[in-house]
Amino acid sequence: MAVSAGLIAEFKKLLGDQFVLTEETDRLSYAYDAAVLAQVVPALVVMPGTEEELGKTVGLAYENDLPITVRGAGTNLSGAVIPEKGGGIVILTVRLNRILEINREDLYAVVEPGALTADFAGAAAAEGLFYPPDPGSQAVSTLGGNVALNAGGLRGLKYGVTKDYLMGLEFFDHRGELVKTGSRTVKCATGYNLGGMMISSEGTLGVFSKLVFKLVPPPKASQAMMAVYDTVEGASETVAAVIAAHILPCTLEFLDQKCVRVVEADAKIGLPVDAAAILLIEVDGSHQGGVDEDARKVREICGKCGSEDIRVARNAEEKLKIWAARRNALPALARARPTTVLEDATVPRSKIPAMVRELNRIALKYKLQMGTFGHAGDGNLHPTILCDKRDAEEFGRVEEAVDEIFDVALKLQGTLSGEHGIGMAKAKWMEKETNRATVEFSKSLRRALDPKYLFNAGKKII
Amino acid sequence: MAVSAGLIAEFKKLLGDQFVLTEETDRLSYAYDAAVLAQVVPALVVMPGTEEELGKTVGLAYENDLPITVRGAGTNLSGAVIPEKGGGIVILTVRLNRILEINREDLYAVVEPGALTADFAGAAAAEGLFYPPDPGSQAVSTLGGNVALNAGGLRGLKYGVTKDYLMGLEFFDHRGELVKTGSRTVKCATGYNLGGMMISSEGTLGVFSKLVFKLVPPPKASQAMMAVYDTVEGASETVAAVIAAHILPCTLEFLDQKCVRVVEADAKIGLPVDAAAILLIEVDGSHQGGVDEDARKVREICGKCGSEDIRVARNAEEKLKIWAARRNALPALARARPTTVLEDATVPRSKIPAMVRELNRIALKYKLQMGTFGHAGDGNLHPTILCDKRDAEEFGRVEEAVDEIFDVALKLQGTLSGEHGIGMAKAKWMEKETNRATVEFSKSLRRALDPKYLFNAGKKII
Repeated sequence: MAVSAGLIAEFKKLLGDQFVLTEETDRLSYAYDAAVLAQVVPALVVMPGTEEELGKTVGLAYENDLPITVRGAGTNLSGAVIPEKGGGIVILTVRLNRILEINREDLYAVVEPGALTADFAGAAAAEGLFYPPDPGSQAVSTLGGNVALNAGGLRGLKYGVTKDYLMGLEFFDHRGELVKTGSRTVKCATGYNLGGMMISSEGTLGVFSKLVFKLVPPPKASQAMMAVYDTVEGASETVAAVIAAHILPCTLEFLDQKCVRVVEADAKIGLPVDAAAILLIEVDGSHQGGVDEDARKVREICGKCGSEDIRVARNAEEKLKIWAARRNALPALARARPTTVLEDATVPRSKIPAMVRELNRIALKYKLQMGTFGHAGDGNLHPTILCDKRDAEEFGRVEEAVDEIFDVALKLQGTLSGEHGIGMAKAKWMEKETNRATVEFSKSLRRALDPKYLFNAGKKII
Repeated sequence: MAVSAGLIAEFKKLLGDQFVLTEETDRLSYAYDAAVLAQVVPALVVMPGTEEELGKTVGLAYENDLPITVRGAGTNLSGAVIPEKGGGIVILTVRLNRILEINREDLYAVVEPGALTADFAGAAAAEGLFYPPDPGSQAVSTLGGNVALNAGGLRGLKYGVTKDYLMGLEFFDHRGELVKTGSRTVKCATGYNLGGMMISSEGTLGVFSKLVFKLVPPPKASQAMMAVYDTVEGASETVAAVIAAHILPCTLEFLDQKCVRVVEADAKIGLPVDAAAILLIEVDGSHQGGVDEDARKVREICGKCGSEDIRVARNAEEKLKIWAARRNALPALARARPTTVLEDATVPRSKIPAMVRELNRIALKYKLQMGTFGHAGDGNLHPTILCDKRDAEEFGRVEEAVDEIFDVALKLQGTLSGEHGIGMAKAKWMEKETNRATVEFSKSLRRALDPKYLFNAGKKII
């Protein structure tokens, strides 16, 4: 869809020439995201710099029937910011990146949607506070994107996900009008919980302009360790046993043999390449004594479940090394083959042993290279298929394997996506997890709030 | 609105004669709730006993244009279950009260909407788990009502409110079709977060049939204390200082002199009737040492903020006595005069001193008896006006005072309702807190999901 010269002139008048990108070479950069999907070049890319400009941009685009995709850093893995077929306008939040307030007394912060997750977490830390959600892409991901996709991360088990920190929200609706919801108070029962509705809506219901997040006091002590297992079952049983002992580690991560080997080949940090699986565990809390006690109990459980090699980080450097293993898992896997298909199907945590068995069976069945790592404490594993998209025969097997992964997850009472979202990639599976009535209900909702179907068309619900 | 004999016969056929109440003497019991508002007698009251019956009841009522009000225990304070003018059908959830599953491994539970909050918390405790939300009416309130109103309670500061525990939800839409959202997993980014939208929707968007709640490990140690203050400011400063020290007590409650005196006159438990205010504080945690340290720091802060009388509960009996003071506040106030108007305006907690000053000013200005107690740690106070609704002149002053309380709360960046909801009582103030666009947006949402405007008409958004 081409945009008329007159409309481009209007956007330039509103935002300034340099913040309206019309050259194809510029627009090409916004044709894709981190999902393995076909690119779509937008017709126009704009960068509003103030809330007012954002509202007018939304109003102008909607009025002129332009499909609208809002883009933070484009780190999502589900095709959530690939423009609608035919193009439309991409609104970048890059200039809307201010941290407007960090309130130490009332433990909240107000930010613009383009603020980076890690910048914000750092700013909160500088004020002695803690913003727990830590998606893998936090160094570059934006908070607006985190809210749109309900981003998770490594701390979900104990601290929850983005949803658990959104206290208030302001957004522009399809008329370019500002809608306000939530509060700066811990409790709020006023009006509809529109923030709850907008979380995870993937840009399909409105355009965020301001986010209010809860902050918490940071933990005062922590202890990290790595437990090495001869069997995947031992690692899985450990996860269940730790929860059964009523210990909620802040992080409880799983890497299978394939991941360990790939990371070690890549990073040479002394990982146990003969292990069937490893767990990386960190406990934290507000008191050293309590943390020591929890860490002792966790070590005991690891031992009982068959780990004969438990490496406790004795200092900050060793702790960094433990987490380097986890942080390197995806980059190392991604380097092994041209295409990385990273899935996100999630099961109740007690079903992790069954899920891992099924994943291994599926990899064998379709003759695929698959490494599995992820948030075992949440039941949120990331089976990662290494392949080459240009090889149609192989990629066909990948697609069949992904279908089967979803089937297995649903059979185990799980869900299609723990934290990556639906986007374009999984929209067609929505009905399988829920039912026809849920899809119809969701469509009614969307139609009411986006009558022209211009907000991120083709995503979430199709 | 009368219901035709034919339609009554259909409901009787569907549910059985004894579960369809048509006699006025029976229907009278469902004409009111705990708000101080005019009664409206429903035309029909029904009690479905299964999910299937519930869905068919909703479909049949909607198809036949009956206004639908779903009623749990009717404990809400905002008129949220008073039938629509002209009557309509009240659906009681009393027979849909099963606790379907408590999953110890995966820390969740599945319940029907009519299950009682306290029964559920007790059942979770029997499995060694903890459901924290504890609204004042928990002994009789239902979980469906808790979700519809996003019920809070005494533990909000540390543990959050109902919203923070809802993982999944099934509900019937206006066509009587079952919609499913959320998951049994800790993380879920699949589909719209319809549970987030339904929380706090006060029966206006659909009818709940099944709720999935997160459970957490219970605290292993706790300590409760009462701190007595000569000035309200001393108590207010303590709240701010405790948070500033990064301690999050599980409960941090405030009672002003009026409340202390009324409770003591009523319950004779040795409360300090000359105190300007008291704080009731409980800290908890997973380790005795940590709890002891927190409790020591809290006592120190209380002292620094001017409390010369700090009473620590040395045993379970003394702890019960401390909480008896808080639990008796509302019943004791309610006995003092014929009518109790209990407000719920909430401010960021650092604004508590300003809010308390304003409340006292308003009580003097309108010459009203007002006692204030509540969740100081959340900024969620309950100014309670004691009056007699039959005295029109006095009640006129009450209404003016309530208007001014809302104005003050909003000026202090607060909200109309922390936990009681909007219902009929506060719908007219919604625009003042948000703006016209938010009300219009909310109406579009509602119209899409309730096209005939039959779901709890007259509540939430008018």
